Amino acid sequence: MKVAIIIGSDSDLGVMKAAVDTLKNFGVDVELTVASAHRTPQKVHDFVKISSAQIFIAAAGMAAHLAGVVASLTTKPVIGVPINSEPFKGLDSLLSIVQMPGGVPVATMAVNGAKNAALFAVEILALQDDSLAKKLISYREQMAEEIELKDKKIQQEVSL
Amino acid sequence: MKVAIIIGSDSDLGVMKAAVDTLKNFGVDVELTVASAHRTPQKVHDFVKISSAQIFIAAAGMAAHLAGVVASLTTKPVIGVPINSEPFKGLDSLLSIVQMPGGVPVATMAVNGAKNAALFAVEILALQDDSLAKKLISYREQMAEEIELKDKKIQQEVSL
Amino acid sequence: MKVAIIIGSDSDLGVMKAAVDTLKNFGVDVELTVASAHRTPQKVHDFVKISSAQIFIAAAGMAAHLAGVVASLTTKPVIGVPINSEPFKGLDSLLSIVQMPGGVPVATMAVNGAKNAALFAVEILALQDDSLAKKLISYREQMAEEIELKDKKIQQEVSL
Amino acid sequence: MKVAIIIGSDSDLGVMKAAVDTLKNFGVDVELTVASAHRTPQKVHDFVKISSAQIFIAAAGMAAHLAGVVASLTTKPVIGVPINSEPFKGLDSLLSIVQMPGGVPVATMAVNGAKNAALFAVEILALQDDSLAKKLISYREQMAEEIELKDKKIQQEVSL
Amino acid sequence: MKVAIIIGSDSDLGVMKAAVDTLKNFGVDVELTVASAHRTPQKVHDFVKISSAQIFIAAAGMAAHLAGVVASLTTKPVIGVPINSEPFKGLDSLLSIVQMPGGVPVATMAVNGAKNAALFAVEILALQDDSLAKKLISYREQMAEEIELKDKKIQQEVSL
Amino acid sequence: MKVAIIIGSDSDLGVMKAAVDTLKNFGVDVELTVASAHRTPQKVHDFVKISSAQIFIAAAGMAAHLAGVVASLTTKPVIGVPINSEPFKGLDSLLSIVQMPGGVPVATMAVNGAKNAALFAVEILALQDDSLAKKLISYREQMAEEIELKDKKIQQEVSL
Amino acid sequence: MKVAIIIGSDSDLGVMKAAVDTLKNFGVDVELTVASAHRTPQKVHDFVKISSAQIFIAAAGMAAHLAGVVASLTTKPVIGVPINSEPFKGLDSLLSIVQMPGGVPVATMAVNGAKNAALFAVEILALQDDSLAKKLISYREQMAEEIELKDKKIQQEVSL
Amino acid sequence: MKVAIIIGSDSDLGVMKAAVDTLKNFGVDVELTVASAHRTPQKVHDFVKISSAQIFIAAAGMAAHLAGVVASLTTKPVIGVPINSEPFKGLDSLLSIVQMPGGVPVATMAVNGAKNAALFAVEILALQDDSLAKKLISYREQMAEEIELKDKKIQQEVSL
Repeated sequence: MKVAIIIGSDSDLGVMKAAVDTLKNFGVDVELTVASAHRTPQKVHDFVKISSAQIFIAAAGMAAHLAGVVASLTTKPVIGVPINSEPFKGLDSLLSIVQMPGGVPVATMAVNGAKNAALFAVEILALQDDSLAKKLISYREQMAEEIELKDKKIQQEVSL
Repeated sequence: MKVAIIIGSDSDLGVMKAAVDTLKNFGVDVELTVASAHRTPQKVHDFVKISSAQIFIAAAGMAAHLAGVVASLTTKPVIGVPINSEPFKGLDSLLSIVQMPGGVPVATMAVNGAKNAALFAVEILALQDDSLAKKLISYREQMAEEIELKDKKIQQEVSL
Repeated sequence: MKVAIIIGSDSDLGVMKAAVDTLKNFGVDVELTVASAHRTPQKVHDFVKISSAQIFIAAAGMAAHLAGVVASLTTKPVIGVPINSEPFKGLDSLLSIVQMPGGVPVATMAVNGAKNAALFAVEILALQDDSLAKKLISYREQMAEEIELKDKKIQQEVSL
Repeated sequence: MKVAIIIGSDSDLGVMKAAVDTLKNFGVDVELTVASAHRTPQKVHDFVKISSAQIFIAAAGMAAHLAGVVASLTTKPVIGVPINSEPFKGLDSLLSIVQMPGGVPVATMAVNGAKNAALFAVEILALQDDSLAKKLISYREQMAEEIELKDKKIQQEVSL
Repeated sequence: MKVAIIIGSDSDLGVMKAAVDTLKNFGVDVELTVASAHRTPQKVHDFVKISSAQIFIAAAGMAAHLAGVVASLTTKPVIGVPINSEPFKGLDSLLSIVQMPGGVPVATMAVNGAKNAALFAVEILALQDDSLAKKLISYREQMAEEIELKDKKIQQEVSL
Repeated sequence: MKVAIIIGSDSDLGVMKAAVDTLKNFGVDVELTVASAHRTPQKVHDFVKISSAQIFIAAAGMAAHLAGVVASLTTKPVIGVPINSEPFKGLDSLLSIVQMPGGVPVATMAVNGAKNAALFAVEILALQDDSLAKKLISYREQMAEEIELKDKKIQQEVSL
Repeated sequence: MKVAIIIGSDSDLGVMKAAVDTLKNFGVDVELTVASAHRTPQKVHDFVKISSAQIFIAAAGMAAHLAGVVASLTTKPVIGVPINSEPFKGLDSLLSIVQMPGGVPVATMAVNGAKNAALFAVEILALQDDSLAKKLISYREQMAEEIELKDKKIQQEVSL
Repeated sequence: MKVAIIIGSDSDLGVMKAAVDTLKNFGVDVELTVASAHRTPQKVHDFVKISSAQIFIAAAGMAAHLAGVVASLTTKPVIGVPINSEPFKGLDSLLSIVQMPGGVPVATMAVNGAKNAALFAVEILALQDDSLAKKLISYREQMAEEIELKDKKIQQEVSL
């Protein structure tokens, strides 16, 4: 099981590190590359065509064509992460990624939604891997417990 | 292999019919239900908990909570389709679906992107089914051929 | 008389503290909990079903489903507070809360409008409590006096 | 129990008729008036000051100041309904109503959310009227049943 | 000749000081008051009705009803200044001021356009005051000269 | 007393006819011309420099530069009317007109706000013409009476 | 001299016909093809690499990646035309085309700005062709004359 | 070969310096001036009419009329750069520049897209200058190499 993460610019790594970490925490292999749909179209093409990953995560800002370009080159699932970029706060990235025409889907996450991109990839892989499926359920339970702890902490802090 | 489609209102069927048809064309079983996150929360809960589908597609308009609510109830992949609803043309549906907080992902399609939701579900299922994977490649080739035909037709129509 | 405040994340407490304080200033009992529509759906369900509060205030950011989910579980008045969250400055939260479909209303306040959520809850409770109604009138008079004082201060500062 | 509905223009009646009908269906008395914050400020003032209604619903389009002006004149609950008006599709009305400054709340509904405005008024009144509270629960059950019927109808129509 | 400036909150003075200064530089009398359409409606009413100013400038943020409320109370020219307020950066203020319905005009300036509000008031007063008209022409010439100086400075800085 | 109306395209006349009619109803002379900031810049220049009008109303759609260009050529009051143009519904026109930089003001009306542009011009002229001032007050009273009539009509139509 | 026009879908021809016609009116050779960045990436690649055109015009709607993809494959000038597509009225297309990252420029026209795309291509070609330059000047003069005629017609229609 | 850069305000130089530098790196002569469409319309007119540049780059913020005004005065290619200005983050500048009506094109770059404006000018000039064309290809190759280096650096930093 391997997921490939393509980032349009090395400056997107700050955000996408969360996807790398999440995948590794779930024991999923990660392939990471910097490749720009506009500045290195050949590199994107070659990477997608050669990669043995089952799922691609593509992250880019502004006129974010990377996810769409990747999706045009493969029929494997492509997950797009719009990066919060100035001045339009990722609205341009979001629309550039989510508004794909019929025939070539990209699964879009929230702006800067790196962690969810990884979790969604895990959810896909878990369909054929029971141990991953169990880890996902544990992950959710852990989140619920953390909220329970925060709730208790707040009850103490805020005297009502 | 089964995909469940949940529509928030029966009026969304006009748009989502394309998802049903696409899945059936690929030979994927479809389960379809009308269930509203706000008007029938219990029904949504029961449907998701009982369903044997591997993937959920949830479509809703306006303050479109359905996909997020489904995702909160399962760790299977959830695909969200924002419905173009008046007066905000689906911007409210899109933001309500795509801007999920970290931990509970929803894979968002374009507004009214029913066909792509189905295709993305097929892409996921094709990871464990080679015949589906081949059908996806044929589907892409057929799209390319259709564009080639349209190109030729336009060349004849527009005398340059 | 009791008002329940549900916050989708403990990070929303900074904003929502103003609601807690305002309610307490009016002598209204407050119940406060952290519960996420997506990460702890069961907790939200149980809290709403069990609570003895007459009014619910729900605050959340991004794809803010919390208020809608609460409203789907009760016919008591639900007041929604969209939280200013990055990168869309609460526009996603606002639309996710205010654009509820017909049948299940949520009374929406301004982005980060914690104080007004509390005041609106007090206005509802004051319909059956004359002393609260009088306090509300005093509150308004006090606001007017404060503006009068600021006006005088500015008249002195700005030599015209 | 009485609810006053103020519409900024007689052209808003088409939308707001749903609020009148809903309130009457619940057996709540309705007072209806056309009064413009800009064209008849004195009429708005006099109406609000004299009215015996417990709750005000104010509906207006464009720079929709009506709900805010009503709220400035009373400490009773004021519910605002942004009207879908050209060319901005009610975005101007929505922001003009919901973004009230601290101190003077307006409970905002969806654009054209007339029915929900009435239902929310009923939810408030039901806090002191058990028969109304029961009617609200029946209303929700009826909505759920209608969705169940639509679900069955769709199951038959769409051969899966 | 007198211009009245009404600010919805004393926090708007930072922006509106530029209007006061510009008017004084042109020798126009200024009347300044803090008065809120929502928190002190009576004060706004009394101020507008009593004032001897020929022109009103009203500045407010968020759901900025002040200019419209002033315009509903007088047939003298009312100039509106939307204040850049969080989180919507004055888009709510702008739409709340500019989208006035037919019959009651408000002359809207750019967000935070305090200086231009003052200049526009001077342009109106200059129609009946030749010396003001001459000052306006000088003001424009001075702006042009300043740009000429900046141009020269840049020519030296940027070696081309 | 004369007001000059400049429309950027003859297709804007449908909207701006309301300004012509309103001015004529108030007995104000009107000068009307079609002149485009982009296609006939010289014509705009000559018209503004030669015109004996006291006030200019400029109406244009899309990247609506006309009002700003007129304002750059005169220190007389310039009123801008954004025209509702496809596909952005006048948002581009509105921002192009209202967001003028400091030094050169344009008084902006609502999108398609032709009638208010005329009324605002009359309000300016009324500062030096008592009969116009009286007509404005009558106009407001008439509007109030019309609303009163509509109110009565609705009371009869809607049986409450 | 040749300009290549690439349209992302044959349905864009209705809009882009104006570009074909304008170029032909100026005597510029036109090459027209239907090729989709997402559905036929190889065709786009081959077309751009082989074409002898000096300038490319690329038109597409929604997540409009076509112009950016073309620009990634050539250093010749690429002009992008966002197509007005539902539901976002071309805002998604515009942002997807104009917000190109540094290094790979696309010259963006207005939404549906087919004629201007052609005129801009002619302006580029006219830099090395004096007869084209003269035709452009005539074209502008003709536009000015047409406006003059419309002006005269309106003067007669609107009795002032 | 010469490119003229016109900036609407000297404060835009910080952004537009990148255009000056890029053009000089390609050996293209640059003419730079500060001239405002609104504050110095005559200067803009004279500069454009006299300049021997083949291409104009115009940069401005807010209601950014400069590029359109320049385009109205010449049939040479005009490239517009919207400047990121408060409070609307350049959305007003972008729409004011890109939404030009038919007949007078402006080639619009991304908000603050100074470097791309220069590169696009170079692409135009390269049509008649083979050495420039070669430099552009080298520039692209260099960009690709830089990304390759960043890719390698990241592979080392992120241990996968």
